[in-house]
This record gives sequence, structure tokens and C-alpha cells, in this order.
Amino acid sequence: MAKKHIPIPLTRIEAFSDGVIAIIITLMILLIKIPTIDKNATTEIIWQQLYGMVQPFIAYLLSFVMVGVLWVNHHQFLRQLKNADRKLLWHNLHLLFWMSLIPIPTNFLGQNFQRPEFTALYGFVMFMCAFSFALMREYVNSNHYLFIENLSPELRKKARVKLRSTTALYFVSIFTGFISVYISLAIFIGIAVIYFMPTNIEVKEDE
Amino acid sequence: MAKKHIPIPLTRIEAFSDGVIAIIITLMILLIKIPTIDKNATTEIIWQQLYGMVQPFIAYLLSFVMVGVLWVNHHQFLRQLKNADRKLLWHNLHLLFWMSLIPIPTNFLGQNFQRPEFTALYGFVMFMCAFSFALMREYVNSNHYLFIENLSPELRKKARVKLRSTTALYFVSIFTGFISVYISLAIFIGIAVIYFMPTNIEVKEDE
Amino acid sequence: MAKKHIPIPLTRIEAFSDGVIAIIITLMILLIKIPTIDKNATTEIIWQQLYGMVQPFIAYLLSFVMVGVLWVNHHQFLRQLKNADRKLLWHNLHLLFWMSLIPIPTNFLGQNFQRPEFTALYGFVMFMCAFSFALMREYVNSNHYLFIENLSPELRKKARVKLRSTTALYFVSIFTGFISVYISLAIFIGIAVIYFMPTNIEVKEDE
Amino acid sequence: MAKKHIPIPLTRIEAFSDGVIAIIITLMILLIKIPTIDKNATTEIIWQQLYGMVQPFIAYLLSFVMVGVLWVNHHQFLRQLKNADRKLLWHNLHLLFWMSLIPIPTNFLGQNFQRPEFTALYGFVMFMCAFSFALMREYVNSNHYLFIENLSPELRKKARVKLRSTTALYFVSIFTGFISVYISLAIFIGIAVIYFMPTNIEVKEDE
Repeated sequence: MAKKHIPIPLTRIEAFSDGVIAIIITLMILLIKIPTIDKNATTEIIWQQLYGMVQPFIAYLLSFVMVGVLWVNHHQFLRQLKNADRKLLWHNLHLLFWMSLIPIPTNFLGQNFQRPEFTALYGFVMFMCAFSFALMREYVNSNHYLFIENLSPELRKKARVKLRSTTALYFVSIFTGFISVYISLAIFIGIAVIYFMPTNIEVKEDE
Repeated sequence: MAKKHIPIPLTRIEAFSDGVIAIIITLMILLIKIPTIDKNATTEIIWQQLYGMVQPFIAYLLSFVMVGVLWVNHHQFLRQLKNADRKLLWHNLHLLFWMSLIPIPTNFLGQNFQRPEFTALYGFVMFMCAFSFALMREYVNSNHYLFIENLSPELRKKARVKLRSTTALYFVSIFTGFISVYISLAIFIGIAVIYFMPTNIEVKEDE
Repeated sequence: MAKKHIPIPLTRIEAFSDGVIAIIITLMILLIKIPTIDKNATTEIIWQQLYGMVQPFIAYLLSFVMVGVLWVNHHQFLRQLKNADRKLLWHNLHLLFWMSLIPIPTNFLGQNFQRPEFTALYGFVMFMCAFSFALMREYVNSNHYLFIENLSPELRKKARVKLRSTTALYFVSIFTGFISVYISLAIFIGIAVIYFMPTNIEVKEDE
Repeated sequence: MAKKHIPIPLTRIEAFSDGVIAIIITLMILLIKIPTIDKNATTEIIWQQLYGMVQPFIAYLLSFVMVGVLWVNHHQFLRQLKNADRKLLWHNLHLLFWMSLIPIPTNFLGQNFQRPEFTALYGFVMFMCAFSFALMREYVNSNHYLFIENLSPELRKKARVKLRSTTALYFVSIFTGFISVYISLAIFIGIAVIYFMPTNIEVKEDE
């Protein structure tokens, strides 16, 4: 086994992931189009133009929280590891790949959140993020030597259950938009709130 | 209490925050439109075009100092902590969210600093930055176990007073622009200067 | 000799390289043009517009894997070193320079992968990345004091052979596109797969 | 004295500076306009379009080397320090401010390197980078407690001489373009080469 999985220090994975996530979370702001406003524009026109930025702004806020949730969980996940191996590097890059796509559906959602095609696209990318995260966790779970000793199997199971239900919910959100976009949006916001709110389960997972 | 607040090492919060702030401070430059200048343009036309970049440049300079001030204070704030908990992660993300918006009002101010709507927008975002910073500091103040032992309560109080007055000033700046934009601009520049100039209070706060 | 090569700690090279690579890998997404879709667009038009993003997306995916491969190898390469010297800093910057160009041929390939001019450009930039990496490895190989003691010369030779054949393949890919672009594309994908798949050779190299 | 200058660990200055410099060096590539090339374009038209990217590319290469030189020197400079103080933070931000402007004159130089207005702008920004670096070095020189003990005063003097002559040369380059742009370009390339080539003086400075 030692032949297949060579320990790799976690620091550079952390640094690289933090870099990529920091860029994703910040650069989504660049995709919000800033209107060039005429010098002689009336106050009314200005507020109208600024009002046009509200929808992209809300989409940005939603994705900021989503990426924030992913970052906090990534953070917590890596803290549970002793070290990495080459396969984990690629699992991590797989997750970062899907995360790097988030700005695109965010932009579409900001353009028009009432199109089911766009909620489907958003749901799909978020699903792939959760799914690749689940794959990475699964891989680590079946390679116990990567874990820090003093972690109880219950906690691992709990985190797994939580991640799996999130993944399933995102999968559902791809299709619900075609019934009503508000179901999909409710799922997105719901997941953000669940992760954001520190529940008892959350706290136990932390210990 | 130990059940609710699980210590988290500060290093990755620092790394992530530094990444986000570095991107914000640098990428504002991308929002300055660089004119494409005709090969046969006269010197006069060129200087005129470059002159058109002066106002966005000054707005960039102002925001660079503002973000710089926030970074220096963030730096100093984290050095006072022993470790973080999950709630602090979210307080920090909250601050970073508002900081990530700074490029937008900076762009508007660079377009036309004489519109009270734009100084109001700038003041509002800066106010939310200061306010979210104050919330984070407040949270830490009421959770003493996060602090390094040897910090005197006076110093904490002084930092709090300074932050609160700044927050109040930014709040005022949202409205003063409708009387005269120069009052708002004076507040922005004034706050930058106050934080920039090492006063006696500042020095004591550092000790 | 000690006069010419002064040891430099590796940490800041790692941090800087990670920063640059993180930005390259993430920002390629910004070069994918996001269409502004009319509010009254039919579903058909929307899927058509999204379909137009598939080709740039595949080019992005290819380059993401390429940069990922380079990052994993860079990571592994630096772990074999004891410390750096001034010349290694410049070798590293040379590599980063060519890597920073990757977004440009990626964009062209995403526009139209059937033009041999674009596969040639892509192959050329990838060739220069591999070549500058080979130069850096060569430099280190001829300055044994930079290496960690316990590295067997066989392993170094194996890594060198692998890198040289990759470099040669990229060189060939510049020209094959003029016969058929699919040969060049097969080379690009082939190299990605070779590095991605953990072969026996790979594993031994890791030990 | 201890009252005025409170030691600050160097690690976060390094991390933040590396982040900012990594973004500057990488994002200049985003300012090179990538033409959208028609599907039915002839090979001739494609090469013509690619040829139009050569001048921006050379400007990018020049600035990449310039920023690389600044990074290597910044790296070396910080290694000579024991710790930082609040004033050094601001000196460092001052340097980063001017460095963050480099993409703008680089873009103009890439548009048309034969306009003396653009070489003047380029020279001015590079001059301010060198000047702010000199100010930071000067500040440290007059606050010996920031230095690592075992640094000989000769070496400090040599580094100072080198930096001062570079600063003076950049200053001259602002004006020489109005005689001939080639003098200014020669100065830019010359300085890059001087720093790039490891001379004897360089080596001694390193020891």
C-alpha cells in the first residue's frame, strides 16, 4: 500500500486551493457589468441604471455564500487529514475545476433568474461541485491512513450523510426549475442557510 | 462553551483573506478603461486621452489606500487572536464580501465624482466594510477566550472607539453628498489620513 | 562554487508559483465570452447560445488539465529540492512566463479547433512550457547540491526521460496540425492522459 | 524608540506582496486583446491577426521581466530583515501601488512603442516603482534594528548604489523618448539585463 500512496504535505494543497477559491469568489464581481453613466443623466436615470445591477448583485451574493460554504467545508475537510497523496491532488483539482465554472451560471442567473434553463445550469454546476467533493471524501474514507487518528467514525458518517443529501438536492434542483424556478431558487438558498446556520449536528461534527 | 466554539488555526484565514484582499486591491486597476489610441493621433489628442484617465486614477488611488487601511487593520486584528472558530470564519467572509464590492463604487466615483448618488454608493459600501469589521471585533470582544492573554482591556476599548467613530463617519457620508459631494469626499480622505498617520493613540494600540 | 550559488528558502518560490498558477488556471474562465441573452428569447435560442459555449468550454477543460499536470509536477519537483538559488528563481520565472501565455492559445482553440494555425500555436506554447521545465530540471540535475541527499539517480533519470519525450511530442504537435488537426489534438489529450493516469513508472518516481 | 517601532512578523507581508505581484504579473496577459477570428478567414488573415499581437506580446515580455526583477529583489530585500513595523507596511503598500499600475503603460507601449508619450509614461511608472523601493530601503537603512545582525554595511551600500542608479536611469528615460524612443527602450531593456545577468557585485550582495 505504501507503494501506491506516497504522503504529500498538505500545506501546498491548502495554499493552492485557497488561491483558486479566493480568485473565484472575488472575480465574480468582475462579471457584473458596470454601466457607463452619462454626465448629464438625471437622478432618475442613475437610480434606474443602479437598479439594473440589483439582480446580478443578488446572484453574486448567492454564489459568494455558496463558494464561502465550500471554502469553510474544504478548510474543515483538510484539517481532518494527516497528509495527501497524488490521487487526492487530482480529486482536489476536480473539485476546483467545477468551482471555477461557478461564475458562468452566476452570470446567467444574474441576467434572468426566471428562466428554468439558467436555474438548471446553476443547479448542475453546484451539483458537480458537491458531487466532486463527495468523491474526494469517499476516496479519503476508504483510505483511512490519510486521516488523523483521533477522528470518530460517527463524525465521518455524519459529514457524509450531510454531503450526500446536499448533492441529491442539487441534482433535483436541475429539474425543478422547469416546474417553477422558485423551487430551484428555494433549494439553492435552503442549502446555503443549512450550512450557514450552526446546528447541533454541525457543532458535533466540529468537535 | 467549549462545545460551541471549536478552535481553528488562524493561518488559513490569513492566507485566504490575504488572497482575496490582494485580488481586490490589484484588480480595481482592470476597471480603468484603457483607450485605444490611433496611430496618427496628435500629441494633443494623446494627452487629452490620458487626461481622461486622471479621474479614474484618483478614485483608484483613494480605494487603494482604503483597502490598504483595511488590510493593515485586518492584519493587526488577527495578530491579537489566539485562534478562530466557525463563527469568526463567517464574520470574516462577511467583511470580505463587502470589501469585494469596493471596485464597483470606485468605478462610479472614477466616472463622475460630482454625483451625490455615487458618493452615497461609495460611502455605503465603505460603511458596510467598517460595520462588518466592527461586528467581527464585537464578536471577538465578547468571546475573550479567542484573545491572546496579555492584551490590556484599555487597548481593546481604544480600537473599538476608533472603529465605531469611523463607522459612524462613513454612515454620515452616505447622506452628506446630497448637500455637497465635497463633504463626503472630505470624509473619505479624512478617514484614510487618520488611519495612515501614526498618531500617539495608534502607537499605544500597537504595543 | 558556494560563491556562485547562495541557498534561498523554497517557501516563497512555492507561494509565488502557486499564486501565479492559481490565477492562470482560474482566469482562463474569464476569457469564455458569456452571451447576453434576451429576456424574450425562446428556449431554442438559449440552448443554441449555450451550445456555442461548448467548444470554448472543452478548450478550457483541456488547458485546466494541462495546467493541473504542470502544477502537480512543479509541486513534486520542488519537493525534491533542498533549497533554491538565484538562477533557479529565473528558471522558475521562465516557466511561469510561458504558462501565463496558455490562456491565449486556449482562447483560439476554443474559437475554432479545426484551424492548424491554432493547434500549432497551442502546441508551441505547451512545448515552451515543457521545454522551460526541462531546462530547470537540467539546471538542477547539474547542480547536485540543490537536491535532497536521499534521491536515487535512477529516479532523476526517469523523470528526465519522461519530460524529454513530452517536450518532443509537443514540438511535433506544432507541425502535425497542418496534416490533420486531430493528430495534434490527440497528442495534447494523450499527454494529459499519460500524466494523469498513475502508471507504475509514475509511482516509482514518487517513492 | 521601541515605542515607535513595534515588530511585526514578516510572513504576512511576504504572502500579501507575493499575492499582489503574482496577480500583476499574470493579469497583464488579460490586457492583450485576443481577436475573434472568422471561421472562413484565410491563413493569411489569421497570420496577420496573430502578427498584430506581436507588439503587445513584446511589451508584455518586457514588463514580465521588469516585475520579475522587482519580485526577485523584493524577495532578497525581505530576507535581510528581522521583522517589520507599521511604517514598513505602508512603504511596502506604496511600492505595490506603483507596481499595480504597470499594466497600464505596458498596454500603451504594446499599442504603439514609437510614441514618446508612451515611453515617458512607462518610464515614469517604472521610475516610481524604483523610487518607492529606494524609499523603503532608505527607511530600513536608517532603522538598523530592523536588519538581521550579520549584514555588513558594505553590502547595504552596494545595493543602495545599484538601486539609486537604476532610479536615476528610469528618471532619465521619461525624457529621452522625446529625442528618440529607442534611447528609452534601450534603457528599459538595459536595466532588465543588468539585473538579470548575475554579475560579481550581485553575487557579493547575495552572500
